Amino acid sequence: MTDTETNPAENPFLDVSGVVERAVAAAPRWGALDPVARTGMLRAVADRLDSAGDELVPLAIAESHLTETRLRGELFRTTFQLRFLAGVIEEGDYLQACIDTSDDLWPPGPRPDLRRSLRPLGPVAVFAAGNFPFAFSVAGGDSASALAAGCPVVLKAHPGHRQLSARCGEIVTRALHEAGAPEGTFALIEGDDAGRALITHPDIAAVAFTGSARVGRLLFDIAVGRPKPIPFYGELGSVNPVFVTTRAAAARLDEILSGYVASFTLGAGQYCTQPGVLLLPAGVLDRDRIRDTVCAQPPARLLNDRIEGAYQEALGHLRQRPGVEVIVEGGRQLDGARTPTLFRTTVKSLVADAEHLLAECFGPISLIAEYDEESQLVEVADMLEGQLTATVHGEVDDTIVPGLLDKLAERAGRIIWNGWPTALSVTWAVHHGGPYPATTSPLHTSVGAAAIGRFLRPVTYQNVPDPLLPAALREDNPLRLPRRVDGRYIPASPAR
Amino acid sequence: MTDTETNPAENPFLDVSGVVERAVAAAPRWGALDPVARTGMLRAVADRLDSAGDELVPLAIAESHLTETRLRGELFRTTFQLRFLAGVIEEGDYLQACIDTSDDLWPPGPRPDLRRSLRPLGPVAVFAAGNFPFAFSVAGGDSASALAAGCPVVLKAHPGHRQLSARCGEIVTRALHEAGAPEGTFALIEGDDAGRALITHPDIAAVAFTGSARVGRLLFDIAVGRPKPIPFYGELGSVNPVFVTTRAAAARLDEILSGYVASFTLGAGQYCTQPGVLLLPAGVLDRDRIRDTVCAQPPARLLNDRIEGAYQEALGHLRQRPGVEVIVEGGRQLDGARTPTLFRTTVKSLVADAEHLLAECFGPISLIAEYDEESQLVEVADMLEGQLTATVHGEVDDTIVPGLLDKLAERAGRIIWNGWPTALSVTWAVHHGGPYPATTSPLHTSVGAAAIGRFLRPVTYQNVPDPLLPAALREDNPLRLPRRVDGRYIPASPAR
Repeated sequence: MTDTETNPAENPFLDVSGVVERAVAAAPRWGALDPVARTGMLRAVADRLDSAGDELVPLAIAESHLTETRLRGELFRTTFQLRFLAGVIEEGDYLQACIDTSDDLWPPGPRPDLRRSLRPLGPVAVFAAGNFPFAFSVAGGDSASALAAGCPVVLKAHPGHRQLSARCGEIVTRALHEAGAPEGTFALIEGDDAGRALITHPDIAAVAFTGSARVGRLLFDIAVGRPKPIPFYGELGSVNPVFVTTRAAAARLDEILSGYVASFTLGAGQYCTQPGVLLLPAGVLDRDRIRDTVCAQPPARLLNDRIEGAYQEALGHLRQRPGVEVIVEGGRQLDGARTPTLFRTTVKSLVADAEHLLAECFGPISLIAEYDEESQLVEVADMLEGQLTATVHGEVDDTIVPGLLDKLAERAGRIIWNGWPTALSVTWAVHHGGPYPATTSPLHTSVGAAAIGRFLRPVTYQNVPDPLLPAALREDNPLRLPRRVDGRYIPASPAR
Repeated sequence: MTDTETNPAENPFLDVSGVVERAVAAAPRWGALDPVARTGMLRAVADRLDSAGDELVPLAIAESHLTETRLRGELFRTTFQLRFLAGVIEEGDYLQACIDTSDDLWPPGPRPDLRRSLRPLGPVAVFAAGNFPFAFSVAGGDSASALAAGCPVVLKAHPGHRQLSARCGEIVTRALHEAGAPEGTFALIEGDDAGRALITHPDIAAVAFTGSARVGRLLFDIAVGRPKPIPFYGELGSVNPVFVTTRAAAARLDEILSGYVASFTLGAGQYCTQPGVLLLPAGVLDRDRIRDTVCAQPPARLLNDRIEGAYQEALGHLRQRPGVEVIVEGGRQLDGARTPTLFRTTVKSLVADAEHLLAECFGPISLIAEYDEESQLVEVADMLEGQLTATVHGEVDDTIVPGLLDKLAERAGRIIWNGWPTALSVTWAVHHGGPYPATTSPLHTSVGAAAIGRFLRPVTYQNVPDPLLPAALREDNPLRLPRRVDGRYIPASPAR
């Protein structure tokens, strides 16, 4: 066989339709599994990935240039996430089971017996990200939450870590197979053409994507432009501004600046939550000191040549904006590793040139904007586009803070107080989302327990006899779910 | 002033931007109201509408040709819905308040204090429907759920009942004003150009629409094609097929057929849940008998000339499809009232010509398709597009039924057993939605408690000090909300 014949990207439609057909065949069986059975299979995937750590981490280092410590932590986070989501479906509230028994005295007229729970949407297309080779890739949050919801996953691998993706794909597929999941529950495809064919495939029910605003919007437009439009959950990017009040700067500037530098250079600045802009009172910045802090960061290579190219372009572009100056000049070592670059401007220039200065820059780069009046913080907050995060360093009784937090809550999905956006915990209460362009779907999160809800839709059964109801809605509650009955929430039976 | 000067549709952009500006100004204040305060205002709106019944119902009769009984019932349903949704926000679970306290031992790394609840999206555009002048119009489910969520509403009135809309709009606006709601919480606009200007306005955060698939798709495309796309909740239409098993037909054919005729002719067949297709075993239909049943229905005028025209077109179109015959010929009386028309075909013809025969027809019209083998029921179910409802008349131990219900749950939002889709209750567990083209947003309902969720998005607060948190998330739970704390659901304090 020639190379052409073996490369699936050469014949994306043929390959993709076979993969989707198998996912369609798997969907009713994977979706109908008792949540507890699905739980065991998700845990089996996590176990297999953990066991393969010594094989996978070196592959990830070679392809992503990220450090071993970071990647081992990321793999742990990934398998923790699979187990955490397994626990969420085991608990059962995610099904939102709800029963209204029949009521002849219901005011607008007799009410039939109505029982609602959620069911899986069907096969989901997941587009892996490049910057988290584990946690937002093959077995990352999107795949884990779609599988947990009961949806087969067709994963479009990221070209930045092909070998790692292929190997993780094999491990996930095999672990599911050995645990008894239907064939076709998980598959991996490669190539942009195959990705586009996937989104347009009539049997794909939803798309999850993590990546750039440019590509995300392009794929969003395809998904909503289909004859049958489908939900597109795109996490696109964010500037993640940080607001420092006058009193916070007076009280602990050094601590704030060293936290800032650590956050914007973390993972070579390649986090979607990287703080791209820091707002500081004018006149407090000690340039020598911050230069020392920035220069103390270890140089790091960017993920790949494409990102390196875009980074160089962003550097050149920012340098030319009016009112913007370089205060720490980064560079590139012979091995390709980058030292960070830091820019400075005034809030006045930032506001005047927001389109260019309040824009995401991927890589170890950030901008400090100095304000004269604290009220300018609210002015900047008010002109923000949708953000994944916004951070405030302040004092509890700063008069500006309540209004600033209100304004930021209108614009961002997560509000951080006296901390940094780059640490993102996988929990029940976390939200990783935000208004456009942070995401294409402001109601949803791609991280945490609620991420599962993206892949479920309600169905109500009216007067359906008990033996014909799904288990979640039967009178004797065989799944021991928490349920809302006649308007009242009834916790799961403790016998569970 | 000339007519042109007084008609806002002549200058839609000017008018719409003023209206939206006032909604933007109202949004933070309306959204920040304690749910209990908002509750009182929704109830005030309901009270005012109830008091105005004797004025509103005659207006509605004149403009819609619907009967007084139907319209009085619909007005009651509308005000019940406002009060029901007020109760839902009072209960508080709709905010999905969730707290993860800080945990240094959280496996992937120390977890900060994370607190999430939902907040209103911002000003919502609601497009009223023509077929329910109260329940899906000015103060209908979309307006009620957006207002309950804390979002100001700009309502685009339906041209089919302009006077009624204007009067309802005045009543809602005044009731809100007198109850202390911020100016701009509710406004009404008219005209298609104004409607389009509304959807493209950058400060509109979401759109709710009930109407035809054609117009719905057109407006959906505008909403998702914006520079900043916004959620578009369109309820577009449905064939609402009814499947009758062999044994059900043998046991109670007369009862089924009289229920069917009553359902497809209800409100002159102008329900989005009208059963457009009934599948019966071949050879059981007594044509004389069903003709008598159909002819016993009172003639009724369609909503307006546009719908009358589309109805005539659909009649002519269906008549020409291969294998389709008229078994009850309807007609039009001198006063414009219509008697119903009933068609018959075979399931074989239905399957061969699904694009035309499994399509929504608005008005007193339906199609009986006869099957030879019960297995053809599953075949038809499998080829359905997304539906609001699907109904089965069967016996609990019919062997075909479990597979049929599974297949229908893949395609429809509500599954009805031995009943009719046209009765739709406003409750906690109801779902009025379904996969495209039934709606543009398969995760959401436009009726019932869950309808509020369309207009809310999550925000997570990380390590934010208690006095700076929204009330929903404060440690002492001043709103007495049910909350999930460290993964465990804690019901609302009974002291409430």
